[in-house]
Amino acid sequence: MKRIKIIVSYDGTNYHGWQIQPKEITVEKVLNDTLTELLKEQIVIIGASRTDAGVHALGNVAVFDTDTSIPPEKIAFALNTKLPKDIRIQKSEKVKQDFHPRYCSSKKTYEYCILNREMELPTERLYSYYCYKRLDLERMNQAAQYFLGEHDFKSFCSARTDVESTVRTIYDMDIRKEGEFVKIRVTGNGFLYNMVRIIAGTLLQIGLHRYPPESIQSIIEAQDRTKAGPSAPPQGLKLLKIEYEEIER
Amino acid sequence: MKRIKIIVSYDGTNYHGWQIQPKEITVEKVLNDTLTELLKEQIVIIGASRTDAGVHALGNVAVFDTDTSIPPEKIAFALNTKLPKDIRIQKSEKVKQDFHPRYCSSKKTYEYCILNREMELPTERLYSYYCYKRLDLERMNQAAQYFLGEHDFKSFCSARTDVESTVRTIYDMDIRKEGEFVKIRVTGNGFLYNMVRIIAGTLLQIGLHRYPPESIQSIIEAQDRTKAGPSAPPQGLKLLKIEYEEIER
Repeated sequence: MKRIKIIVSYDGTNYHGWQIQPKEITVEKVLNDTLTELLKEQIVIIGASRTDAGVHALGNVAVFDTDTSIPPEKIAFALNTKLPKDIRIQKSEKVKQDFHPRYCSSKKTYEYCILNREMELPTERLYSYYCYKRLDLERMNQAAQYFLGEHDFKSFCSARTDVESTVRTIYDMDIRKEGEFVKIRVTGNGFLYNMVRIIAGTLLQIGLHRYPPESIQSIIEAQDRTKAGPSAPPQGLKLLKIEYEEIER
Repeated sequence: MKRIKIIVSYDGTNYHGWQIQPKEITVEKVLNDTLTELLKEQIVIIGASRTDAGVHALGNVAVFDTDTSIPPEKIAFALNTKLPKDIRIQKSEKVKQDFHPRYCSSKKTYEYCILNREMELPTERLYSYYCYKRLDLERMNQAAQYFLGEHDFKSFCSARTDVESTVRTIYDMDIRKEGEFVKIRVTGNGFLYNMVRIIAGTLLQIGLHRYPPESIQSIIEAQDRTKAGPSAPPQGLKLLKIEYEEIER
């Protein structure tokens, strides 16, 4: 029996998120079913990040245990031949038996993508949030500084949550223009339910001159979800990568 | 009665191309139906470029005649409220009554997008062609030079064509790396049926060291479709813009 870690990218458009649900198609279910078929043993994966419906991933992480004789690094290629086109394994490797993608400490990086131009672009609609008013990036970057460090992010967490602590650390936040896009990239030791989307929605308000940049400080201090901006829609969000601190093998 | 020019962007994924067909959904049909509904008069548009099924456009052009009292530049906004999300009008304006998007001389620019990395990326699958072998851009750029100028491009035209002349002029061709993408951008006074996709397919063969760069010259001279490479798949192709030489208003 060995534990295999996979790096999973997917287009979230046609899935009801990562986590298995009774009646809906999810990324987790497709991976369980496809692995079970491929390896001819019952596979139950453990995922790192339970992304919402419509959210995309470049590098989500999952592990599973298997007795297969397929070499660990070949599982990615074998699995990709059986997966639907909107899910692809980027890498597979053997890890320590006690490696757990949620309990082992990690840095997660998300990117929120905003299309900021006068007219919508059909080919970008599934992977960005469209905003036709000009965003003020200087204000958004000023605001970003207030998120850095360890804070209680209760104001940036949807009510529907069962976590014990709402304290998280944000290591880095970068907001930059790439052509007609504004991209918010954020790295932290973990994110609460809807946290990145609420951060993006609040930064949008600041970029539109509706809140001052320094309001972030009082919003954090309030520990009240109603003080932050609305949750930005899921299609603009992408989980870029999850980096684990310890040696995994 | 006035003639209105519209700049149309679309995601070609869910359409059987531009041109009206008896039983399939096409961009032209959706535009005719939506304009007819909006303006409450029978509208028949004339398009500039009849893109294939699965091909995208940032700036295709069409015109139609109307008696509407809606100001010309407002038609884009009114139409966008009624169009499906995968078609958007970028601009609408009044043009001279004799302006014809196919017969007036123009420069068309297309881009062919190749994702060149080891593993597929689900979120790029609808807008690029995936190639896992490393492409040699220096060779591709060497080959590109042979396309420039006026040539008979019969070798780069699918048999299914009814045009009288297969002579076209290519003004510019640029192949460059953008992150993990290779983008082929080509500007000409017009393109034959499947011509950009056959150019892209042939340049791919050169980038993979299967043909030498200078083979382009002999392929052009042969005037024989079987000498060129295969047609690259439609989802990598996007019509970027059409520029008209004369003053249109």
